[in-house]
Amino acid sequence: MMKVTVLQNIMNANDQLAAENLKLLDKYKILSINIMSSPGAGKTTLLLETIKRLKDKMRIAVIEADIASSIDADKINREGVPAIQINTGGQCHIDANMVKSALDRLPLKDLDLIFVENVGNLICPADFKIGTHKNVMLLSVPEGHDKPYKYPLIFTTSEAVIISKMDYLPLSDFDVKVFKEVVTGLNPGARILPMSARSGEGMEDWIMWLEAQLKQVN
Amino acid sequence: MMKVTVLQNIMNANDQLAAENLKLLDKYKILSINIMSSPGAGKTTLLLETIKRLKDKMRIAVIEADIASSIDADKINREGVPAIQINTGGQCHIDANMVKSALDRLPLKDLDLIFVENVGNLICPADFKIGTHKNVMLLSVPEGHDKPYKYPLIFTTSEAVIISKMDYLPLSDFDVKVFKEVVTGLNPGARILPMSARSGEGMEDWIMWLEAQLKQVN
Repeated sequence: MMKVTVLQNIMNANDQLAAENLKLLDKYKILSINIMSSPGAGKTTLLLETIKRLKDKMRIAVIEADIASSIDADKINREGVPAIQINTGGQCHIDANMVKSALDRLPLKDLDLIFVENVGNLICPADFKIGTHKNVMLLSVPEGHDKPYKYPLIFTTSEAVIISKMDYLPLSDFDVKVFKEVVTGLNPGARILPMSARSGEGMEDWIMWLEAQLKQVN
Repeated sequence: MMKVTVLQNIMNANDQLAAENLKLLDKYKILSINIMSSPGAGKTTLLLETIKRLKDKMRIAVIEADIASSIDADKINREGVPAIQINTGGQCHIDANMVKSALDRLPLKDLDLIFVENVGNLICPADFKIGTHKNVMLLSVPEGHDKPYKYPLIFTTSEAVIISKMDYLPLSDFDVKVFKEVVTGLNPGARILPMSARSGEGMEDWIMWLEAQLKQVN
């Protein structure tokens, strides 16, 4: 039983810190979005394309999480947007404390929108609150439409579900209709957004969704 | 410090059980392969294609792990090969105890080869020994060639690294040469196998690699 007690305490401490992060973000009227997916589903590409379209309209920063390396933060920085890299050192998700330490290093009074790019993983990130306003997940077409059956939690805790790499659809047996039905069954309120960063398909709907969320924190 | 101690004890208990699993498999001269990848990289498809090619030559069983559902075990069973489904109930990897309980349900004296399909994840499975002879991982072309930088451990602990979904290469900026160089830098002994289950590319090399491993346990 000791193991359970210790883990319970860790979760409670994390949830408290997450609530403090959210309070801080609300104070500065910053919308914060937690982006989750498998490795290589296109989180960084989505962020780069989003930044290109929004950076003249609003002030954006990114918190990048990875087990190791700063490849993604370097890419974001090249777009002229501040990016803080978190290396989890083996941990399969970020926690509220890591996000807090990144927020401490960002110029919050000069920001409107913060993206947190979580570690590439469909499992652990769904278990840990980090104190962001919205969860967004990507599932890429090559991963297959059966993933909601196998990893249900992340689909039920995401306010928006992006189907990324729609340009791979002609080569794939991904069934968009079945996928939408299953996700809606798990999470009736989820906004499902088919997208291809390469062709630009779906980017306009995504930007409109983001702008609607922004209004809610202002 | 208590948290660390508890985790240390869990790891030691797991490693002991893993050693017992391996001893049991050696006793029955069964080759066991732990298959790891991101969600949707093609583990089940690889197994189905491998079973088609080998089931008349040797006796195969599969241990299927998922957070939830029995979709993959059902697919394997349809090939006429016994498959035991493990549901981890949220845990991001399987452990030696789960494999032990699955081995207890398999007819070991009638088997030559057991595949364990781990949970779809590039992080947690690499941390836990389960008592198999060899680790094999798949990275699919759409995931991108930068993944060894971000998830180094799984690449260093795998004896074979399969580049799956090679049929997506014309649509992708995946650089096979760079990927091979980085993997070889991390893990000079790793066998790197480009593969497409759809076209059949690379399947012959993979089967030859498996047959060479089989000789080592006999």
